[in-house]
Amino acid sequence: MAFSETFPLQITLPTSSFLDIGTVVAITVFVSLLCACIVIGHLLEENRWANESITALLLGLVSGVVVLLFSKGQSSRILVFNEDLFFIYLLPPIIFNAGFQVKKKQFFENFSVILLHGIFGTIISFCLISLGAMFLFRRIGVTALKLQDYLAIGAILSATDSVCTLQVLNQEETPFLYSVVFGEGVVNDATSIVLFNAVQSIDFRNIDVITALNLLWTFLYLFFTSTALGIAVGLLSAYGIKTLYFGRHSTDREVAIVLLLAYLSYMIAELLNLSGILTVFFCGIVMSHYTWHNVTASSRITTKHAFATISFIAETFIFLYVGMDALDIDKWKGSHASVGTSIAVSSTLLALVLIGRAAFVFPIANIYNCTVKREGDKIEVRKQFIIWWAGLMRGAVTIALSYNQFTETGGSSSTEHSLMITSTIIVVLFSTVVFGSITKPLIGAVMLRHPKLPSSDETDFTSLEDLQLSFIDKGGPSNNSSNHPITRRSSLSMLIKYPTSTVHYFWRKFDDKFMRPVFGGRVFVPLATSSPTSPRDGTS
Amino acid sequence: MAFSETFPLQITLPTSSFLDIGTVVAITVFVSLLCACIVIGHLLEENRWANESITALLLGLVSGVVVLLFSKGQSSRILVFNEDLFFIYLLPPIIFNAGFQVKKKQFFENFSVILLHGIFGTIISFCLISLGAMFLFRRIGVTALKLQDYLAIGAILSATDSVCTLQVLNQEETPFLYSVVFGEGVVNDATSIVLFNAVQSIDFRNIDVITALNLLWTFLYLFFTSTALGIAVGLLSAYGIKTLYFGRHSTDREVAIVLLLAYLSYMIAELLNLSGILTVFFCGIVMSHYTWHNVTASSRITTKHAFATISFIAETFIFLYVGMDALDIDKWKGSHASVGTSIAVSSTLLALVLIGRAAFVFPIANIYNCTVKREGDKIEVRKQFIIWWAGLMRGAVTIALSYNQFTETGGSSSTEHSLMITSTIIVVLFSTVVFGSITKPLIGAVMLRHPKLPSSDETDFTSLEDLQLSFIDKGGPSNNSSNHPITRRSSLSMLIKYPTSTVHYFWRKFDDKFMRPVFGGRVFVPLATSSPTSPRDGTS
Repeated sequence: MAFSETFPLQITLPTSSFLDIGTVVAITVFVSLLCACIVIGHLLEENRWANESITALLLGLVSGVVVLLFSKGQSSRILVFNEDLFFIYLLPPIIFNAGFQVKKKQFFENFSVILLHGIFGTIISFCLISLGAMFLFRRIGVTALKLQDYLAIGAILSATDSVCTLQVLNQEETPFLYSVVFGEGVVNDATSIVLFNAVQSIDFRNIDVITALNLLWTFLYLFFTSTALGIAVGLLSAYGIKTLYFGRHSTDREVAIVLLLAYLSYMIAELLNLSGILTVFFCGIVMSHYTWHNVTASSRITTKHAFATISFIAETFIFLYVGMDALDIDKWKGSHASVGTSIAVSSTLLALVLIGRAAFVFPIANIYNCTVKREGDKIEVRKQFIIWWAGLMRGAVTIALSYNQFTETGGSSSTEHSLMITSTIIVVLFSTVVFGSITKPLIGAVMLRHPKLPSSDETDFTSLEDLQLSFIDKGGPSNNSSNHPITRRSSLSMLIKYPTSTVHYFWRKFDDKFMRPVFGGRVFVPLATSSPTSPRDGTS
Repeated sequence: MAFSETFPLQITLPTSSFLDIGTVVAITVFVSLLCACIVIGHLLEENRWANESITALLLGLVSGVVVLLFSKGQSSRILVFNEDLFFIYLLPPIIFNAGFQVKKKQFFENFSVILLHGIFGTIISFCLISLGAMFLFRRIGVTALKLQDYLAIGAILSATDSVCTLQVLNQEETPFLYSVVFGEGVVNDATSIVLFNAVQSIDFRNIDVITALNLLWTFLYLFFTSTALGIAVGLLSAYGIKTLYFGRHSTDREVAIVLLLAYLSYMIAELLNLSGILTVFFCGIVMSHYTWHNVTASSRITTKHAFATISFIAETFIFLYVGMDALDIDKWKGSHASVGTSIAVSSTLLALVLIGRAAFVFPIANIYNCTVKREGDKIEVRKQFIIWWAGLMRGAVTIALSYNQFTETGGSSSTEHSLMITSTIIVVLFSTVVFGSITKPLIGAVMLRHPKLPSSDETDFTSLEDLQLSFIDKGGPSNNSSNHPITRRSSLSMLIKYPTSTVHYFWRKFDDKFMRPVFGGRVFVPLATSSPTSPRDGTS
């Protein structure tokens, strides 16, 4: 019942204001910087090297320097990174909006690739980074870390930054890459957090097969229950709004209830110790598929843009925050490490991140290619390269986990732990600024050499209806030349031949027959002309 | 630099979640209750006794009881009312939205009445309640309060609850009453907070004429600088958005910058020790007049509904919060007062609120009526009655100020001070629930007896353009029969005859010639078809 602790009473100064001057200054600075980020980001729109994340990060760094100079290197309290702020207020809207705006068809078509990368990839990366750190750190001279610390480092650095990816890849231009890299990012967040929690809670003196199985069971349990919860809340919102029809009286109430239920799904998941990220992501997907079609036209435009705006502000805020926090003088003082050691540790970690990601992206893609028969569905080498590269950025999740592991109550005490925190910050800054700024031109260059996108990127139906039409026209989910009507036998052979598309087709039939009549959706609400994922209103 | 104190680190439990379980529980409870409020409020929409404020307040009370029972009367930490939360996060969006959605013409036409009520009325009410409490409390047996406490009580109970008014009166049905009562509420908030600050900071051992003049000067300074700041930020946003045209690339950035600048105006005002409420209110007015017309069509719909939604959630949250907080067991224990004393003090305060408001509403209205020549412009007795009644509700500002005055650091210590807090809570609960639920039927009854609204409520031009047209058609701001063209001489005589409308006319000319070409607005953006105050998109 610590609500008061989250928003503590702060009335100290006998000024005209009731508010604590420090809070007011901090908020004013942050809001001003956010405005500056938006304006600068807008002016740099055409620039191929910069993006909003990098702008915010650099602006945060500059502000950090200014604050340090103003306080003469003493006070750095405006800079303190806070995990609660991040996990309660900033992450949920970003992930929800990602689910709300994601191209559902692309996402589910590539679901197997996404799961392979997000789960097995993260585990491979986790093992490699942990082992690598364990062996290489001793050579540098870092010896005080325990087994648990090394495993935690593996989990911490396996968490990719899906936020930065969203800004670098374009859903319209490269839908396949976007859905794979971003989808992987969401699953990866969940996986690495589960791994991290496992590392923190497992007793390392008694490791056996049962512990490992237990871990696997925990992960599967978390994955499925979190997803189910998200879907349940989404369906509840769709059914409730369809039945009660709030929009009859007030658009604002309709928007409010959608917003609150989305947030509630995250909080309930956290309350049940599930993965709030997965829950809110699937809640977003279900809400965009059903709920969004049940509200009035104004609510549709409002929710679409309001969620995107909140998510955009939260993203920018995080980068600003990380940038400002990077200069927290106490942490740098606490590490007592020479510049050489710092650089050695950071470069080792960076190298491990690069290798750890390469170690799963290329093998998984090639294994996947072996299972796929059609040439166009295969993941080419240059796409593999982009998938590898676009997932190298590390962001706020990494920093939050690092603080959680290496900060003892009341500030980091051990020298080695402080060194780990500063090294994580260096990795995050370097990967975001350097890798991030190279990514856009890199993708441009790779795509320019092969200006025509491969076929799996071209078969981007604008809606599931188009898919169904092409299905009926061609008698199959893809452009094979068979013209037979769909019978039970042919659909069975289709399921074997084109499993994803066939599952899609049957899902669509089920959706039309059972789900939409109950939960609403495109067909049952004649007003709906577009979906939140389509950019057709010409403004997004 | 106390950002970390506002969002303190709270990682204690080794669960799958990084978040403090108390915070998660509190947020989940509040979000669930907010959803319940919206659903119940929606179902009770047709009910004439209930409204969302009352629903939220009662639901908050019930939840408070449940929490008390669960914690066996021990823990009541989920209930603690926090001024920072209120003044930083909840009040600004409510007041901004009020300015953004207020009918500007009505507001400025009744500006003199609003200022009279908001400034002089509040001062009269303040004096009466202070004096009344000073004399009557001694008879009840409450003697330990100092002069400063009595004056604080006057300021605390002079702050009307503009939020509840917004829900009870209807801008479309009774525009005159709405603009007067609501406009008064905004000015009243500012006045009572200024009075309260003055009471807290003045040294009462040396009161003389200079102190009084100083107080007046402070008030005027605050009023004008706060207003000017709000207008400046609003114009800056209009000019910036018109020049940079964020919507070219992204609706979301446009919405984000409008949102952030609005909030920034409040925070800058607080930073400069001005009245953030006045600033953000005028910022909202300017933004709806200029900025809103410079953004894309999607942004226009999104801002209109998103601001209303945020405001709606904040309002509901406040009532929920006040309801839950009312049962905070520590305060009731601390007062040590008998039920009789509690009731006596509360009824005294309630009576003083009733008398204090009557003492300025009726005299001011009658003085105003003497200065007005046209019969239709006069404020009739039944309207005076409604103005008096609609301003009797006391709300979150009252509670926040009461806590500020009567809570010593670490909980209220003195018995008399605790009694004041509990009595304030009783006044707030009683006035909101009882007065609030009677208001709707009361207004209905008063209006039913005189089903036709008086003329000053009928001349509700939907836009300033209509006003100008009627001006040009009729040669004057109202339906007099003169048909002369507007010349310098006749406009001078008009200024004397119909000062408000004439000022309006010249403002409109100035606006068209100098302001709109620079800052944008309806005329200069052909896409704009309605204004945020008009309900024409059929959904609000």
